[in-house]
Amino acid sequence: MTPVVPCALPAARELVEPVLRAAVDRLDPVTRRVAAYHFGWADPQGRPADGGGKALRPALVVLSSKAAGAEPDLPAAAAVELVHAFSLLHDDIMDGDRTRRHRPAAWALFGRAEAILAGDALLSLAGELLAVAGTPGHAAVARSLGAATRRLIAGQAADLAFERRGEVGLEECLRMSSDKTGALLSCACAAGALAAGAGDGLTRALAAFGEEAGLAFQLVDDLLGIWGSPEITGKPVLSDLRARKKTLPVVAALTGGTPAGARLAGLLARPGPLPERDLREAAGLVEDAGGRAWAEAEAKHRLDVAHRRLADAGLPAAVHAEFLDVAAFITARDH
Amino acid sequence: MTPVVPCALPAARELVEPVLRAAVDRLDPVTRRVAAYHFGWADPQGRPADGGGKALRPALVVLSSKAAGAEPDLPAAAAVELVHAFSLLHDDIMDGDRTRRHRPAAWALFGRAEAILAGDALLSLAGELLAVAGTPGHAAVARSLGAATRRLIAGQAADLAFERRGEVGLEECLRMSSDKTGALLSCACAAGALAAGAGDGLTRALAAFGEEAGLAFQLVDDLLGIWGSPEITGKPVLSDLRARKKTLPVVAALTGGTPAGARLAGLLARPGPLPERDLREAAGLVEDAGGRAWAEAEAKHRLDVAHRRLADAGLPAAVHAEFLDVAAFITARDH
Repeated sequence: MTPVVPCALPAARELVEPVLRAAVDRLDPVTRRVAAYHFGWADPQGRPADGGGKALRPALVVLSSKAAGAEPDLPAAAAVELVHAFSLLHDDIMDGDRTRRHRPAAWALFGRAEAILAGDALLSLAGELLAVAGTPGHAAVARSLGAATRRLIAGQAADLAFERRGEVGLEECLRMSSDKTGALLSCACAAGALAAGAGDGLTRALAAFGEEAGLAFQLVDDLLGIWGSPEITGKPVLSDLRARKKTLPVVAALTGGTPAGARLAGLLARPGPLPERDLREAAGLVEDAGGRAWAEAEAKHRLDVAHRRLADAGLPAAVHAEFLDVAAFITARDH
Repeated sequence: MTPVVPCALPAARELVEPVLRAAVDRLDPVTRRVAAYHFGWADPQGRPADGGGKALRPALVVLSSKAAGAEPDLPAAAAVELVHAFSLLHDDIMDGDRTRRHRPAAWALFGRAEAILAGDALLSLAGELLAVAGTPGHAAVARSLGAATRRLIAGQAADLAFERRGEVGLEECLRMSSDKTGALLSCACAAGALAAGAGDGLTRALAAFGEEAGLAFQLVDDLLGIWGSPEITGKPVLSDLRARKKTLPVVAALTGGTPAGARLAGLLARPGPLPERDLREAAGLVEDAGGRAWAEAEAKHRLDVAHRRLADAGLPAAVHAEFLDVAAFITARDH
């Protein structure tokens, strides 16, 4: 069953998009155009388009404000989304990924330098929005977002290093995935409460929920990167295996001590680009070696832990349910 | 005469370097290593080295604190230097410059992806340091630094666009240079006073001084990029002409309506890499077309304006003299 998009997402998108657009409007025309394309607001020629992401992180920030009994904090929600957009822009360059959300990646269309600058601009705007808001709560969000950005960078650095290394342990791969996905979702879940000056107990429980739900989300994303259809993922089929990415199901398969895992290691060690046939065989070997089942079980386990952390927050029933809906949505297998 | 390095520079370096090192120590090991190399604290193998920049911008922030009658503001000084370091890291990648301060550029040694990530990390750390300091004055510095970063990005985007365009006007070239160099020096000159909560009159006069002195500095840097010796600049001889950079002396020569300017335009329009002989001829044509004399006169003019703006600040004699020393140092022709 395809889960319905929780209404927190479009609602947050409607609130935050004007703030994002106003921020991007402050950039020079060249960089603004790349950023507007990346956000899905413009087509390659700069004409208005109605793309746009699903506003997952802004929605979590808005729920986080609600959790603290406050109005939605738009600078915080926009800042978290800007950092997310920055990381996608730069990651696509580094990973050589030419497709993003069914369209050419910004760097493939406008050039590497232009995409580097646009990413820099979005990262800088995030800090600027929080500095303009200027309350002690926003300084706390800026500190949390800075720490999350360091983890995003650490995760991407590890991800790149893993592609070149022969052996990667499951523990370090889990850490990499937490850094790449858990860190910013954790920050988003706490940011609204932080901006409102909520106490440590609430912000920590929300952050822990986001961290665990984020890892569950990454596990599902890794599964989709191998077995998801391109129409759903917006990426070419088997692209993660083609890039020899050491994703969690792959590393679980490689480190499980099975004959299928050993065959997978041999296949991935072959020099040169892997032909389609080898990629399909590799996907089969990940499954035979237990990597798929492990990732599915681990995603379920992390989601369970996320639920327990959310219960620690002691939220009113309505906002508690909204957080659960978002977690269920991002860890569903078919969106 | 080689001007003596004003003592404000080594003094600021000694104050700020521990703050910078502590910030960089919070990064993951891979990114930390690239950053430490870029700052000159480590050699390519990660062993301690004693390089380091001249700490011009931290020195201006420290003087700016003094101008407001305050103690040196180290988070502000470190944040400005981090943004400067970030911009150098990313600019070298985009410009394809393989040499920086007599050593291989970080991207040439560690790879493009690693240098992109290290630049991202330094930009993010700048915002984090100010958020950790957390006073209203530091929020004001963060807003000013955000605006300066947008201008750095706008300047670099224009610089790249100019390399590919046939005709560039002198006005737009001046704006590009102000964005690339004036913006951050202006921010540095105001940041200490902003952090201390000084009034608008003082911060505006200091910012205007930095803006004009920064443009004078860029004009001198452009002159050195053509006629400076590699031992002094740390870059290969004639590298700006080799990259067909539309620097101010070049654009002044091209737009001056002289026969030499027309010959220069023809030479720079030739396809393929320009051989050494053509580069030397191009340098001669810039001079014959009046580009060198114009840039020298404009640098002097901007420095005069900077002096007048500094006088508007009404500073105590000692700190006034220190600002003048720094401005004289960075606009000297032979360092």
